[in-house]
Amino acid sequence: MNVEDMNASFSLSLREKVASLIRDVPDFPQAGVLYRDITPLLADGDTFSSLIKEFAQLYEGKIDAVAGLDARGFILASPIAAQLGVGMIAVRKAGSLPGPVIGTDYSLEYGTARFELHDFTVKKNQRILIVDDVLATGGTAGAAVQLIERAGADVAGLCFLLELKVLKGREGLLGDYDVQILCVL
Amino acid sequence: MNVEDMNASFSLSLREKVASLIRDVPDFPQAGVLYRDITPLLADGDTFSSLIKEFAQLYEGKIDAVAGLDARGFILASPIAAQLGVGMIAVRKAGSLPGPVIGTDYSLEYGTARFELHDFTVKKNQRILIVDDVLATGGTAGAAVQLIERAGADVAGLCFLLELKVLKGREGLLGDYDVQILCVL
Repeated sequence: MNVEDMNASFSLSLREKVASLIRDVPDFPQAGVLYRDITPLLADGDTFSSLIKEFAQLYEGKIDAVAGLDARGFILASPIAAQLGVGMIAVRKAGSLPGPVIGTDYSLEYGTARFELHDFTVKKNQRILIVDDVLATGGTAGAAVQLIERAGADVAGLCFLLELKVLKGREGLLGDYDVQILCVL
Repeated sequence: MNVEDMNASFSLSLREKVASLIRDVPDFPQAGVLYRDITPLLADGDTFSSLIKEFAQLYEGKIDAVAGLDARGFILASPIAAQLGVGMIAVRKAGSLPGPVIGTDYSLEYGTARFELHDFTVKKNQRILIVDDVLATGGTAGAAVQLIERAGADVAGLCFLLELKVLKGREGLLGDYDVQILCVL
């Protein structure tokens, strides 16, 4: 963990605490993948509420809704939305939402998948913050960007708890957007 | 919708607003099931933040952690936890969490499934509130109760946004616990 590399939008004490609460699990969900388990972090109430406050402060007055990515993204997106008093847009795995939906396929670190969205819950030109727990290859985040823009809204930025820097998720599509990361691993 | 039937722990204005924002979808995810779509409700920022505040107020000082049920339960559990400054315990669908986990199978309105939990994120005798969006047959909630108690913690109560009364989810296992429901359908 390189704390120096972490984004200075967040307090050093929070970044250090978050880094100490991530559990590394080799070979999950498949051989060769190092999984970053955030469950010990979520279970630490003081740290969890502090990180939600710091994320929400970054976007106060700048966004109209938060889009959370199924499923772990919901855990961060919903409290940020509730704290700011804005709506929560659920970007869901294929088959989870009843129609009508718009959808897009994407590839991720291990395998492929499809995201779907109720575009009737998104307003035209709404400024939407996309939130997920981990920025890996950027495949899931890129799919969410596509869906939000196809729905007629603007992507006001993206934020993540963790970035797996070696996977270069910020390159390509995400290069054009404001991206905020709490911990770079 | 019978607003009279709704739980008086919540304000009437909130209960009426929530009821008006639920979209009924027949035959999803399979024929004969009436799906209650909460995405329009989540997208309404004022209503979403109000309902989180009312839920959090009910449990202020009474709980040590919130357990959210994968995936829609996360959307309510996390902001309640963040608002109260307590931890969020993720009760996840089988295969989502790296080991070691404890798990239990359960049956639900349509099909069967398995929940898993990192019991190392739960402290002995912690008072835990179980949160999900919809109380249907009570199968998922009952499985969560079992897991929390096997992990050595106490179930301080359960809360849900909606109850599908005809499925009688409050009978059986859940009869022994404090259950709070915002809307009874």
